[in-house]
Amino acid sequence: MSFNNKKTKLSGQNTEYFPGISKIEYRPDAPLDDTLVFRHYDAQQLVLGKTMQDWLRFSVCYWHSFRGVGLDPFGSGTIVRPWDDGSDSLETAKQRLRAAFEFFSKLGVKYWTFHDRDIAPEGNTLASTNANLDIIADLAQELMQKHQVKLLWATSNLFANPRYMLGASTSSDAKVAAYAGSQVKKCMEIAKKLGAENMVFWGGREGYNSLVNTDVKQELDHMAAFFRMVVVYKQKIGFEGQLLIEPKPKEPTRHQYDYDAQTVMSFLSQYELGQHFKLNIEPNHTTLAGHCYEHDVVMASIFGKLGSIDANTGSPDLGWDTDQFPMDIKSAASIMKIIIEQGGLAPGGLNFDAKVRRDSTDLRDLFIGHVAAMDTFARGLKIAAKMVEDGLLKQAVEARYSSWAVGLGAKMAAGEATLEDCEKLIHEEGHPTPESANQEHFEAIVNNYM
Amino acid sequence: MSFNNKKTKLSGQNTEYFPGISKIEYRPDAPLDDTLVFRHYDAQQLVLGKTMQDWLRFSVCYWHSFRGVGLDPFGSGTIVRPWDDGSDSLETAKQRLRAAFEFFSKLGVKYWTFHDRDIAPEGNTLASTNANLDIIADLAQELMQKHQVKLLWATSNLFANPRYMLGASTSSDAKVAAYAGSQVKKCMEIAKKLGAENMVFWGGREGYNSLVNTDVKQELDHMAAFFRMVVVYKQKIGFEGQLLIEPKPKEPTRHQYDYDAQTVMSFLSQYELGQHFKLNIEPNHTTLAGHCYEHDVVMASIFGKLGSIDANTGSPDLGWDTDQFPMDIKSAASIMKIIIEQGGLAPGGLNFDAKVRRDSTDLRDLFIGHVAAMDTFARGLKIAAKMVEDGLLKQAVEARYSSWAVGLGAKMAAGEATLEDCEKLIHEEGHPTPESANQEHFEAIVNNYM
Amino acid sequence: MSFNNKKTKLSGQNTEYFPGISKIEYRPDAPLDDTLVFRHYDAQQLVLGKTMQDWLRFSVCYWHSFRGVGLDPFGSGTIVRPWDDGSDSLETAKQRLRAAFEFFSKLGVKYWTFHDRDIAPEGNTLASTNANLDIIADLAQELMQKHQVKLLWATSNLFANPRYMLGASTSSDAKVAAYAGSQVKKCMEIAKKLGAENMVFWGGREGYNSLVNTDVKQELDHMAAFFRMVVVYKQKIGFEGQLLIEPKPKEPTRHQYDYDAQTVMSFLSQYELGQHFKLNIEPNHTTLAGHCYEHDVVMASIFGKLGSIDANTGSPDLGWDTDQFPMDIKSAASIMKIIIEQGGLAPGGLNFDAKVRRDSTDLRDLFIGHVAAMDTFARGLKIAAKMVEDGLLKQAVEARYSSWAVGLGAKMAAGEATLEDCEKLIHEEGHPTPESANQEHFEAIVNNYM
Amino acid sequence: MSFNNKKTKLSGQNTEYFPGISKIEYRPDAPLDDTLVFRHYDAQQLVLGKTMQDWLRFSVCYWHSFRGVGLDPFGSGTIVRPWDDGSDSLETAKQRLRAAFEFFSKLGVKYWTFHDRDIAPEGNTLASTNANLDIIADLAQELMQKHQVKLLWATSNLFANPRYMLGASTSSDAKVAAYAGSQVKKCMEIAKKLGAENMVFWGGREGYNSLVNTDVKQELDHMAAFFRMVVVYKQKIGFEGQLLIEPKPKEPTRHQYDYDAQTVMSFLSQYELGQHFKLNIEPNHTTLAGHCYEHDVVMASIFGKLGSIDANTGSPDLGWDTDQFPMDIKSAASIMKIIIEQGGLAPGGLNFDAKVRRDSTDLRDLFIGHVAAMDTFARGLKIAAKMVEDGLLKQAVEARYSSWAVGLGAKMAAGEATLEDCEKLIHEEGHPTPESANQEHFEAIVNNYM
Repeated sequence: MSFNNKKTKLSGQNTEYFPGISKIEYRPDAPLDDTLVFRHYDAQQLVLGKTMQDWLRFSVCYWHSFRGVGLDPFGSGTIVRPWDDGSDSLETAKQRLRAAFEFFSKLGVKYWTFHDRDIAPEGNTLASTNANLDIIADLAQELMQKHQVKLLWATSNLFANPRYMLGASTSSDAKVAAYAGSQVKKCMEIAKKLGAENMVFWGGREGYNSLVNTDVKQELDHMAAFFRMVVVYKQKIGFEGQLLIEPKPKEPTRHQYDYDAQTVMSFLSQYELGQHFKLNIEPNHTTLAGHCYEHDVVMASIFGKLGSIDANTGSPDLGWDTDQFPMDIKSAASIMKIIIEQGGLAPGGLNFDAKVRRDSTDLRDLFIGHVAAMDTFARGLKIAAKMVEDGLLKQAVEARYSSWAVGLGAKMAAGEATLEDCEKLIHEEGHPTPESANQEHFEAIVNNYM
Repeated sequence: MSFNNKKTKLSGQNTEYFPGISKIEYRPDAPLDDTLVFRHYDAQQLVLGKTMQDWLRFSVCYWHSFRGVGLDPFGSGTIVRPWDDGSDSLETAKQRLRAAFEFFSKLGVKYWTFHDRDIAPEGNTLASTNANLDIIADLAQELMQKHQVKLLWATSNLFANPRYMLGASTSSDAKVAAYAGSQVKKCMEIAKKLGAENMVFWGGREGYNSLVNTDVKQELDHMAAFFRMVVVYKQKIGFEGQLLIEPKPKEPTRHQYDYDAQTVMSFLSQYELGQHFKLNIEPNHTTLAGHCYEHDVVMASIFGKLGSIDANTGSPDLGWDTDQFPMDIKSAASIMKIIIEQGGLAPGGLNFDAKVRRDSTDLRDLFIGHVAAMDTFARGLKIAAKMVEDGLLKQAVEARYSSWAVGLGAKMAAGEATLEDCEKLIHEEGHPTPESANQEHFEAIVNNYM
Repeated sequence: MSFNNKKTKLSGQNTEYFPGISKIEYRPDAPLDDTLVFRHYDAQQLVLGKTMQDWLRFSVCYWHSFRGVGLDPFGSGTIVRPWDDGSDSLETAKQRLRAAFEFFSKLGVKYWTFHDRDIAPEGNTLASTNANLDIIADLAQELMQKHQVKLLWATSNLFANPRYMLGASTSSDAKVAAYAGSQVKKCMEIAKKLGAENMVFWGGREGYNSLVNTDVKQELDHMAAFFRMVVVYKQKIGFEGQLLIEPKPKEPTRHQYDYDAQTVMSFLSQYELGQHFKLNIEPNHTTLAGHCYEHDVVMASIFGKLGSIDANTGSPDLGWDTDQFPMDIKSAASIMKIIIEQGGLAPGGLNFDAKVRRDSTDLRDLFIGHVAAMDTFARGLKIAAKMVEDGLLKQAVEARYSSWAVGLGAKMAAGEATLEDCEKLIHEEGHPTPESANQEHFEAIVNNYM
Repeated sequence: MSFNNKKTKLSGQNTEYFPGISKIEYRPDAPLDDTLVFRHYDAQQLVLGKTMQDWLRFSVCYWHSFRGVGLDPFGSGTIVRPWDDGSDSLETAKQRLRAAFEFFSKLGVKYWTFHDRDIAPEGNTLASTNANLDIIADLAQELMQKHQVKLLWATSNLFANPRYMLGASTSSDAKVAAYAGSQVKKCMEIAKKLGAENMVFWGGREGYNSLVNTDVKQELDHMAAFFRMVVVYKQKIGFEGQLLIEPKPKEPTRHQYDYDAQTVMSFLSQYELGQHFKLNIEPNHTTLAGHCYEHDVVMASIFGKLGSIDANTGSPDLGWDTDQFPMDIKSAASIMKIIIEQGGLAPGGLNFDAKVRRDSTDLRDLFIGHVAAMDTFARGLKIAAKMVEDGLLKQAVEARYSSWAVGLGAKMAAGEATLEDCEKLIHEEGHPTPESANQEHFEAIVNNYM
């Protein structure tokens, strides 16, 4: 762990963890290779009557940015932070948290997210693990207060510990599910204490690696039973955050039960859990499921299920989750347009479930990744706002469907028509010939807004 | 269309269309390069108390085998049949049908499937189109009677005609949806007349090519409204076949709304259509959706929704639907095991939605493809039956989940446990350590059955 | 073919084929939904000392834009042009050509491309086919002169006719290869006559669908032998255009021998053909091969093999070649940067191997697709030019490799070091620790240029 | 690391590491769920005049089987071995090695493979690292002698240490390349001492993650310069093993320079290194590159470059390298057919670059995976041998190409024909019509051999 010759270990409450970096400023005219300024994100700037900050609700995730060390399946960690001795001590856990809040503060984000196991070390027993969590949660509460940073969501890590190698609620070992239950119980208590606006469930290992040794039906039944316990406990303790399920198609499992937005919505229907959960959509997961970048955001939104977004991206030529900072302006605009059209994302937000590349080992890389992503979404917001305000695209889309608002179209749409009505119309009016969908025209207009 | 120098055009009612080929026989000891015999499929052989024929319920599809000419996006047709002048005349339609029934008969299958537009030509009006369909349906009825071949399912082709370029029920043009309604109405009448055991809906163009010009929510609403009209008409005329939706993720659209089994089940829930529909699963579509070969068969089966199967395969290295004859014995065994475990597939069957390769231009290739696929599934059936009969795999799987049958496991499974119960158990008993899942052991056993 | 009710058939030499559309003008301030103007492409504007027109060398392809009818594997043609009766007559061929040149002229492009079989109908014999080609080539020569449009490249269609179902030079039937030879001979003669600046070979069916019936080595040997005949004939007749091979990984074949840039370069080396061929890179093929958009452009360029580019795009979520108009500004900038860095693309160009969507059935859609793509590349050019001019990115990249310019680094790069030298250095200096690659910083700078 | 409660730590020279498991026997009639016997692999059985052992040349890899702990990007290790305290001590390294040789011996394989860093711990300096390696190499030599196990190949791990985060020979830091040179030097010395029959280069991080910060050309030049140093040193010390490059398309890099077989052969040609290297093909890498399972084996073999094979498999629905034990009999047969046709694989072999699943935590799982894979390949060998002996497939393939052996076909194949000859033939003989390729017939024959 001596990589990068960063010898000085930082400690102490008054330490500045990022000494060369000031609060990131909005300076649209900075030189093009100054990547530590915002050129587009101006937190208090009004867009369609709301501040950028309120539309975007940016959040930094703790796991990648404060626990990631650049480990991958082919190599050990490359990233060493001066405040992090790599140990699992409570003291180091506190240092990390203090560094993180300095980061949030200098970056200017108002939300953070974490897994229970990111912030506090596991002990030898559940009791000691929970005690550790309490200690850290107290410090988090204090730092949140001090820095005016809120908790977008908390989540239980139910996949990293070897005990979860076969899943948590879907493990073949019921005792593992029981352990997961204990863990979620505590996590929800902490979430409540810290005012979490949501709580996320990502079923990393809830799935199968092979069908030959798996009873899929039984596993899904167990998963549903587990979620029912969660709902009951939520009501019992009065946790008011929104419960969110995060779809992902595969990795680490060969098949994850929460494959994509529609699969999760199907599961929620199959087990009558729909009213209690919304979705946390991650575009990198969406593309891994074979969809286009914004597909799951659309699918969740139109059914009133879009709860929050993990703002990241992958590479379409790769078959795994690279969790890169989102840098594509057009994609950001398409996401922001959906958010504007549904009236905002609160109590959800744009959480940067993104990590610096394994070979981005400088401290400033951590800032640059976030700054560039925030600017990308700020540009996306401004573009989307202009699109929505102009209404050109919306009118053009509506014009395409105008035949459904009159005559038999309207009757069909209202569920009042029959196949006999259809036949009668065709006998009377003859064959239909649909109009051009003008896709290139629409794409050109979108580019004109860029 | 003069390719292959097949000059003699066949016609007339007493013509033999496949003159060099006799009824395919069961001859397990034929030379290895004799590919016009069954070595494994013995229709009347009993397997677990039922005949092979009853387990397998093989069906030949009309579109690939009697309308396919080898067209692809980069070239025109290569396949010329002596009875087919390539015209859209009723006379040619009749010739094709007679040739098909000779084929079914010589092959020894008891079911066929068709699209309305495969069997009869379109006229200039809906009325004339329907009249053509009536004429051909009469002939079909006669030939089905004569050859003792039944109709597994009928379906409406709602994608090939240019009028469907933007979808059928999801077209932006309501009149197109009305046309589709007329077409489905007639198709269902024909299906009823011919005793179809099912009716399939494959929404080839129900999806989007681009989100910029599409109103996804409105399109899904229209699709649901359409299916409701279908259900009403089914009840009205007393058609007793099972309605089936066939998922496919993409192609020809960029995204098809019926992406995979879970997506269709989600749609059926979202629009409260679940009780009226089951699924027709095609493994080549399943793999295109990013799943393993048998995934959608499993998912449909465990929720009581596996209605029928399109027995084919693709190449995992290709991103489109190649509809090849299924030749993989292990995959066939895995499918047959699921079918045995759910007690059979009736009223569904194994429909060969498969086509000879574009460069398989000999008449005998059409037989060989089907014979080899039938043998592949017959081997699969025998292997699966032995697996099920032995019970070794089942017991080994059940052993893995035994902890869910006792104590807190049983209580959780029954929905009677709480998170507090979970916590209590862990405090008392400590951390769980799950057992090995022994995947290689299971895989080795499967291979031992091959 | 009566779709779209476009009843009036156009004919005659003085016809205006696109009556409502004038020459596309450069009007950067046009309303955002006016998609029939250039906002960025200004042909004579100077960029880094050359006109936009000279940097971009746009070309329209004949096959998609004047022969495409919207056929796909699931449906018949949707696109009907008023000048095109769908027949294979010479008269229609001439009408199409006249319409095309009006299009080139109104669009303002200076190049076109074609397959031999696009422009002239096949006859019953090779002689009559060649005679048809001569007639059309004469007209093309006249129109090229009149409209001041040049031929970027010609190519032989060696894949669409059923005779090529097993490939052309790699067909198992040597006579098919001989036919292909005859066809290429004539095409090269026409190319020479029309002053083609290049000649392209896309081996659409040179590959395999299955290894079980294929002798790959023999097929590759035949392909090489064929290219040698081409080179000899080129030298014999003094055709001075650049020969180009266009890689594609698959489709229509399961595996195409010209998989990607490196595969083609490997083939050229294996058969000592390297000096005679460069590459025509199509990004949609590159992404189908599993690479990022610009990968093959880079690989060809660094080895001096980038001859020309088919400017199009696909959808990363689709597994086939959709040949869409390129609309992504960032991708266009990355391509243009490579072109600028290699000093231009001449005698190659940016050929729009792109087609309007099957449901873009209006005549104006054909213009809009091209206009938007040209504007996209014009924006890309301006962005890339600024990047190159500033030199910020180049310097930052060079700084990363500075250690290779001194000491043992320089010695290794020069091929003058040994493993013993390496060991000695490490014994003396200890372990290396590489610097951060700062990927997010580079990505942010790129975005700053957008 | 206390997972699985395996408390007893083993140590000492006379320890039995796998106490419940005897030498795996050939017992074809064992019960179907006994997965610790060979049913097909009978080492001394003659097949086409050679023993199974000589055809198959099985090898166990050290890294997965004796260093793998089940780590993945979402969780820590799950696999704990009683002899392995997880430390990097020399003593533990020796224990592991002794356990491994007991495993090789009980399994009955005659070869092993390793990375330099698998077998011995790194020290604080290159000198101490090399000293560690010497100590372990001495023990390896002794154990190899004792157990009569040979070294199929050694390789340098140039990817796991953080210093290789940007590649080894292609690092932007020349000193890293120098370190890699030192490491390869030592590894080759060890390889020579242990009689390695080959030496493998897998360029895990030789590639790019982003083109924006990478100079591809310079990196490739450096890679070539590095390989030249390797060749020079090989000649200097008289190491007689075959040098092998192992292609892989991506992971951990976004793009690996050694993408697939043809890409590596292209690189070798571009830098005139072809005579010194052959290829080590891993099917899981081949499928990740978008090819069918046996593609790269075929491509390498036909150009005389197939040096060795990493016998494993992946899941076609996953986009990363799962390194599973090969269990598909048909695929194994196709590989063995190619090996038989090229006369064997020596000095290469079938190296099981495969790992037990992360949730296969029992010691016996390690045996079962290997046993089942060996049986799979033994079945493949027997099937392939019968295919080759019968000659049915070969004759059928040859018949397809018979036209290339006579007349103009032969002349073209010999490079003696011209395009004019082609044209003359077609004018004289008219259009060709190729014969059916009968793919289903070939596939059916293959199945008949299963």
